[in-house]
Amino acid sequence: MAQTFVTLLGSLRKASFNAGIARALPALAPEGATISPLGSVGDFPLYDADLQAEGFPPAVSAMGEAIRAADGVIIVSPEYNYSIPGGLKNAIDWLSRLPEQPFKGKPVLIQSASPGALGGARMQYQLRQCFVFLDARVFNAPEVMVGGAMAKFDKDSGDLTDQGTKDFIGKQLAAFAAFARVR
Amino acid sequence: MAQTFVTLLGSLRKASFNAGIARALPALAPEGATISPLGSVGDFPLYDADLQAEGFPPAVSAMGEAIRAADGVIIVSPEYNYSIPGGLKNAIDWLSRLPEQPFKGKPVLIQSASPGALGGARMQYQLRQCFVFLDARVFNAPEVMVGGAMAKFDKDSGDLTDQGTKDFIGKQLAAFAAFARVR
Amino acid sequence: MAQTFVTLLGSLRKASFNAGIARALPALAPEGATISPLGSVGDFPLYDADLQAEGFPPAVSAMGEAIRAADGVIIVSPEYNYSIPGGLKNAIDWLSRLPEQPFKGKPVLIQSASPGALGGARMQYQLRQCFVFLDARVFNAPEVMVGGAMAKFDKDSGDLTDQGTKDFIGKQLAAFAAFARVR
Amino acid sequence: MAQTFVTLLGSLRKASFNAGIARALPALAPEGATISPLGSVGDFPLYDADLQAEGFPPAVSAMGEAIRAADGVIIVSPEYNYSIPGGLKNAIDWLSRLPEQPFKGKPVLIQSASPGALGGARMQYQLRQCFVFLDARVFNAPEVMVGGAMAKFDKDSGDLTDQGTKDFIGKQLAAFAAFARVR
Repeated sequence: MAQTFVTLLGSLRKASFNAGIARALPALAPEGATISPLGSVGDFPLYDADLQAEGFPPAVSAMGEAIRAADGVIIVSPEYNYSIPGGLKNAIDWLSRLPEQPFKGKPVLIQSASPGALGGARMQYQLRQCFVFLDARVFNAPEVMVGGAMAKFDKDSGDLTDQGTKDFIGKQLAAFAAFARVR
Repeated sequence: MAQTFVTLLGSLRKASFNAGIARALPALAPEGATISPLGSVGDFPLYDADLQAEGFPPAVSAMGEAIRAADGVIIVSPEYNYSIPGGLKNAIDWLSRLPEQPFKGKPVLIQSASPGALGGARMQYQLRQCFVFLDARVFNAPEVMVGGAMAKFDKDSGDLTDQGTKDFIGKQLAAFAAFARVR
Repeated sequence: MAQTFVTLLGSLRKASFNAGIARALPALAPEGATISPLGSVGDFPLYDADLQAEGFPPAVSAMGEAIRAADGVIIVSPEYNYSIPGGLKNAIDWLSRLPEQPFKGKPVLIQSASPGALGGARMQYQLRQCFVFLDARVFNAPEVMVGGAMAKFDKDSGDLTDQGTKDFIGKQLAAFAAFARVR
Repeated sequence: MAQTFVTLLGSLRKASFNAGIARALPALAPEGATISPLGSVGDFPLYDADLQAEGFPPAVSAMGEAIRAADGVIIVSPEYNYSIPGGLKNAIDWLSRLPEQPFKGKPVLIQSASPGALGGARMQYQLRQCFVFLDARVFNAPEVMVGGAMAKFDKDSGDLTDQGTKDFIGKQLAAFAAFARVR
C-alpha cells in the first residue's frame, strides 16, 4: 500500500544545507512512498496563548491537517546553539495545541546537517524529548546526522551532492517506511 | 557596588505565571541590586540567516546592548513540550549571532513555573545546554522551578502570591548576586 | 494471550522507595500479565572490555536471556545526581554488549520515585537517550515519576502505601501492556 | 602560582583511547601546572546506601580528599550507550555522598574520545547535568570530543598519536588553567 510522508524544515535560509536534504528526499524515497514538503515554519506567528484564544492561524490548522493525513513526518533541521531552532520549535508549540494533536502516535523521523563534526546531534536529542510529551513514535536507528556539510552540499544552491550521504539517507528512509507500517 | 540585572521573559501570554514571577523580581532583589525587564521576545522576527544578512533588526541589537550592559541576565520562562518555548529560543538564536555575542561570560539565572509538578525543569536543562555553546556562566543552585502554579499565582492577573515562593526566590537572587560579582 | 514482564531495579538499598514500587507491581498488573523481578544489578562486576574478552559473567548472560524471553522490561530506579545510578547504568553497559542485544525492539517502561518534587524525571530522560542507541521501544505516556516519596512509602519497609499512586501505576501498566502487544 | 590538576578516567580497558588521552595530559599541561591521575573507578564497590551506612570505602575517601586538594578535576571518559559509563557514574555517586562534597565549587573539565564521529559528545552533556546538582564549575569552551579515534591513537597501546589533537588539547588545558584561577 502506498505511503505518504511529509517534511518539516527547520531552516528558513534559502541555501540551507537542511533544505538541500529536504529537496533530495523525494528522489530517495523507497518504492511505494512519496515525500512532499509541508508549509514553512516561517508562516507561523510567534506562539502566544492569548492569540490562540482568538483562533488558530490558518497556516497552523493547515499544517496540522497535513500531518494527520500523512503516514509519517520527516523533520529536517539545523542545530542552533546546541538546540532546536526557535522557528521550528515555535511551529511545534503551535501544532501541539491543536484540538486533535497531530503528532500523537505519528511516526517521526529526524534528520540534520551542520558544518561541524556532530551534524546536529544535540538538536536531535532535544527534539526527541519534545516528542515524548507529544506521544509520537520517533524512529531510532540508523540516525542521519550529516557533519562536515561544507564538503557535501553545493555551496551556492545548498543541493546535497555527496553520494554516500544520499545512499545512507535512502537506507534510512526504507527502514523508516517499514517502521511506519507497524501500527 | 550597585548591580543591575535584566530579565528575559519566555512567555507572551498576558496572565502568564512566568510574567508574574518577572514582575515580582524587582521587589525581591537584594540590597544594591536592581532588576528591570528587557524588551519582548515577541518583537523579534523568526530567525532567518538571509534576513540577518540585510542587517540585525533594531529590537535584536537593542536587547544585545542591554544584556552587555547588565551584570547578569535572569531568564524566566515556561516549558513548552518538555523544552524551551520557540519564541524564547528564537530570541536567543538572534542574539547569539550579534558581533559581540552578549551572553559570553555573562552570569545567567534560570527560573520557571508551570501548573505541573516539575515546574519547568525539563526546559531549564535544555536551556543550560545552549549556554554551554554561548559560553555563559549559568548559576547552579538553588534552582527555582515553581510547580503547582495554579495555587501560587492569582488566576486573573498572574501575580505571584505565594509567600514561600517569594522568600525562596529572594534567597536565590541574593546567591546569584554574589555569584555575579566573581569575575 | 498471556504477557510476561520483568523488572530491573536501579537501587541496592533494602528500604528503597523504588524497590517498594517494584514489589508492588505484580499485584497491579493488568489481567493476563505477570510481572517478576530480574536479578540484581549488584551482581554485576564493573564493566571492563578486557574482562568481557574473557567471557560474559553468568549473571549478565542470565539477565540478557530473561529480558529476551520477556514481553517487556520495566525499569524502576532512583535518580542519583540528576542522572542514572551508576549500578543500573553498569548493568545496561554489560547487557548492551551481549551478542543478541536484549533491548533491541523490546518494549521498555520507566518508573521512578524520589523524595523531591521531580520524582526522578531527570534520570528518566537520560535513560531514554540510552535506549535510542539500544533501539528499544520506550513507552511514552503516562509517565510515572513519584515525587514526595517520604509521604507515599512506609519509612521502614519502603513499601508503597499511597493508593492514588498505586491506581495511577495500574493505569500505566495497562497502557504499557497494550503498547507491548503491537509488533 | 603552581596549579595541580587530577584526572578521573572513565574506562577500565587497558588500551582505552581515553586512557591514552589521560596519559598524554601531563606533557601537555601549561607551564606552572601539573596533572596527575586519581585512583581507579574500578576500585569502588557498586553504590549502596546500606553499605555507605557502614562507612565509606577507603578508596572513596581517598579520592574525595585528592579532589578537594586539587585546583581542578579533568574527567576523561568514553561514551557508553549514548551516556556516562556505569563505572564512572558509580564513582561520582559515591563521591557525591562524602561529608564535604568534593566537587562543590570545583573547576571541572570534560574530555572524551570515541571511534564514531561524535567523540563522546552525548556523554559530556549528561555529565554536565550531574555537575549542576554537585555545584561544580564546569568549563565551557573549547570542547574536546575526539571522534574517529581509530586513526588518532596507537591500536595496541592506546597512546594518543595525532599531533593536531595534542595541540588542541594543549590549548584547552591552558584555557582551563586560566578558568580555574578565577575564584
